[in-house]
Amino acid sequence: MPSQAARSAASRRELMDAAIALFAERGYHATSVADIGAHAGQSRAAVNFHFGSKEALLLAIVRHVVDEWEEHMLLPELERAAASPEALTDAGFGAHRRLLAEQPTMFALHHHLMAEAIGPNPAVKDAFAALDRRLRDRIGELLGLARAAGAVRDDVDPGGLAGWLLGALRGIAQQHLVDPSGLDLDAAYGELKRAVLARVRP
Amino acid sequence: MPSQAARSAASRRELMDAAIALFAERGYHATSVADIGAHAGQSRAAVNFHFGSKEALLLAIVRHVVDEWEEHMLLPELERAAASPEALTDAGFGAHRRLLAEQPTMFALHHHLMAEAIGPNPAVKDAFAALDRRLRDRIGELLGLARAAGAVRDDVDPGGLAGWLLGALRGIAQQHLVDPSGLDLDAAYGELKRAVLARVRP
Repeated sequence: MPSQAARSAASRRELMDAAIALFAERGYHATSVADIGAHAGQSRAAVNFHFGSKEALLLAIVRHVVDEWEEHMLLPELERAAASPEALTDAGFGAHRRLLAEQPTMFALHHHLMAEAIGPNPAVKDAFAALDRRLRDRIGELLGLARAAGAVRDDVDPGGLAGWLLGALRGIAQQHLVDPSGLDLDAAYGELKRAVLARVRP
Repeated sequence: MPSQAARSAASRRELMDAAIALFAERGYHATSVADIGAHAGQSRAAVNFHFGSKEALLLAIVRHVVDEWEEHMLLPELERAAASPEALTDAGFGAHRRLLAEQPTMFALHHHLMAEAIGPNPAVKDAFAALDRRLRDRIGELLGLARAAGAVRDDVDPGGLAGWLLGALRGIAQQHLVDPSGLDLDAAYGELKRAVLARVRP
């Protein structure tokens, strides 16, 4: 028989999964504590019992999503590709596109939480500001490695390129989520790769 | 003395302005009909009297925002710059950056409505899907004009480039809204321009 602590951890995890599904579908504000409990097959009071409040549950999810993004997007294998901008764009854009196909719920959730970060929730804002800084720094580091290997022009500003590139990947995902048949993903990722390579190659 | 129709139009406009401010600050779901009425200095019943429902008011705002974006972003003067990719990027990115500085509320609102479009609201989704298609078509048209003038390489895919470029501009704005001091806008717009020109120039 599982211990009390193991049962409690399992209940927390079920509530987080239920909240992730509902926040991604409807957004944070349109989801009530009672909806989350019911979706997880638990009592109306379960969210408050395990997390203290809907906002504390949101912050647990933001931390989880930030960790997931870092694990998937700050891919350690990118480092092995770093000497070649072509290998880097193939690995990075390939991972992004695969995640978009396989985990559309995480992308939708990410966009809802980002709207929350732009709104009045300072804790969510801080979490996403820190994530964006780490992602830009990571892209900038990879560019720096490629530049040190002589594969990137000296006049490229790594932070500036990282900023618009992170934006372009998010913007492609957002257009795809709003209208899956509207944007030709092959053409968009392909042109993005050609533009990055045209800019960075010595 | 203003006519009944003029007073009614003024009340509708005040309610829309109040809702735009509140939706941009808190999001759609966190704003109640009573909040909107109070912010506009009108009765709790005013939204329902003038629009029928909060959702109908949201759709009036989506139409207004879409019109505003089209007016500002499908800039007629871009056509005069079309023969030169450098003039096009200067005019287009300059207009985008100016709007971001002057109308941050419209950008924040746009991001909240986009989250709504990714969520379960089919009318908002359709409105933004149509806007994205028009914006991509417009960027593609301008690229086509520049290509016809011999200023853009023949192997550029206008739709693919328009897709990631629209995404990059939105993604720059989103990072800036979440964390104004995190992203160097000079560097991001500058590198974006250099990447587009490196890709398109024959």
